[in-house]
Amino acid sequence: MLTLADARRVIAAAEQKAEEIGQPMNVAVVDSGGNLVAHVRMDKAWIGSIDISINKAFTARAFDLSTKDLAAESQSGGQFFGIHVSNGGRVMIFAGGIPLKRDGEVVGAIGVSGGTGEQDQTVAEAGAAAF
Amino acid sequence: MLTLADARRVIAAAEQKAEEIGQPMNVAVVDSGGNLVAHVRMDKAWIGSIDISINKAFTARAFDLSTKDLAAESQSGGQFFGIHVSNGGRVMIFAGGIPLKRDGEVVGAIGVSGGTGEQDQTVAEAGAAAF
Amino acid sequence: MLTLADARRVIAAAEQKAEEIGQPMNVAVVDSGGNLVAHVRMDKAWIGSIDISINKAFTARAFDLSTKDLAAESQSGGQFFGIHVSNGGRVMIFAGGIPLKRDGEVVGAIGVSGGTGEQDQTVAEAGAAAF
Amino acid sequence: MLTLADARRVIAAAEQKAEEIGQPMNVAVVDSGGNLVAHVRMDKAWIGSIDISINKAFTARAFDLSTKDLAAESQSGGQFFGIHVSNGGRVMIFAGGIPLKRDGEVVGAIGVSGGTGEQDQTVAEAGAAAF
Repeated sequence: MLTLADARRVIAAAEQKAEEIGQPMNVAVVDSGGNLVAHVRMDKAWIGSIDISINKAFTARAFDLSTKDLAAESQSGGQFFGIHVSNGGRVMIFAGGIPLKRDGEVVGAIGVSGGTGEQDQTVAEAGAAAF
Repeated sequence: MLTLADARRVIAAAEQKAEEIGQPMNVAVVDSGGNLVAHVRMDKAWIGSIDISINKAFTARAFDLSTKDLAAESQSGGQFFGIHVSNGGRVMIFAGGIPLKRDGEVVGAIGVSGGTGEQDQTVAEAGAAAF
Repeated sequence: MLTLADARRVIAAAEQKAEEIGQPMNVAVVDSGGNLVAHVRMDKAWIGSIDISINKAFTARAFDLSTKDLAAESQSGGQFFGIHVSNGGRVMIFAGGIPLKRDGEVVGAIGVSGGTGEQDQTVAEAGAAAF
Repeated sequence: MLTLADARRVIAAAEQKAEEIGQPMNVAVVDSGGNLVAHVRMDKAWIGSIDISINKAFTARAFDLSTKDLAAESQSGGQFFGIHVSNGGRVMIFAGGIPLKRDGEVVGAIGVSGGTGEQDQTVAEAGAAAF
């Protein structure tokens, strides 16, 4: 089980990293069913990233891998090209979504959106590390 | 401006009320653009209420009135009957969404879902009062 | 955890009841996250009921109650009227969806569609009883 | 006509192959109308692959060719590039969907999702061979 307290701890760590690098972010956490547990949009973070952060978290749980790794296989010519239109357009294929594991099992995921791919990834990693 | 700190204060008050009445809830806050600022799903709250809480908040800001009041005009035979399919199905016409005002102006909204209409309304009012 | 073996046992019992009453049905089972575990469409069952059976199961888990009970509160004038457009149109508010419980906790749901509301309910109950 | 019994035979063969290669899968079968006949998600298979398996089967029947072959023409620069956003996002352009033929005519399709493109294809072929 991933609790709301877990989600808040993950989000707090992500926010702290976002402040450190000076880039406001949207941060979302989903549970093992891919369903949203909590989301925050930091002041001045992009509104277009609300949906992206939630769906990066969904994607990382839906396929039990980071969206950064999924991206590598989902470009034109790759084995999963086209996956981004599946699941009603909820599959995000760029960095910022990371599965959250407990005892080796994926029990949820974090999704971050609001900066460059590298910034999103950095913030998501900071969040995941707090889980 | 409605900040993330504002949203968190509103959500905290709503959560406290939800705990008092013993009903786990989804609570969401949107800004003046109707865009999500923060969402939490309390442990054991319904997963079907994630979307509803977010969209009750959207609706309360979209029309600058409570979803409870909108409901009164949106039943079969009412002057707004059918409004619930507008905006891509995001308009919620039952209690639990309340505008948040500052200096007489609507700057956002809270949406609550997870119990009866009366429970949702009670929790939303507690959240709004903290704004 | 609700396993595929669980889902098949539930579906088999539902199919048997559907045959008894002579009405081909769509039967679906979802897990605790509301995600599909298995679906069958019996020969000559309605194609329009594929989506309905899957979404009745989703709904019963999303709100931890039968769609028959949800229906009672979701008619025009009821406290949840309008809920049927939430969650992207996945909320079904007529009989045939029933939560599946283990040790008092909802861990999934069955959804049945293909006949009258009464037939759907009867078949769903037979399926749920086998869980 | 493709019956539920046919679909189950196809799915059973696919499941057996999935177990052999040690990769849990989602397997779906559609009929000549492209409509779902049966779906199973094996324990621990990805939840993001539910939709993909169903839509690979849809796609294979919708165009009467394997999604692997369709992929070859649907990459950036190819003659069908962009087809993946048609049909409401239901067209899957990566391996794992195969038409099911009887007497030289396509009467349905199988869709498999849950592993690499090669694994999905291998499992789909095993399922199709049992038809």
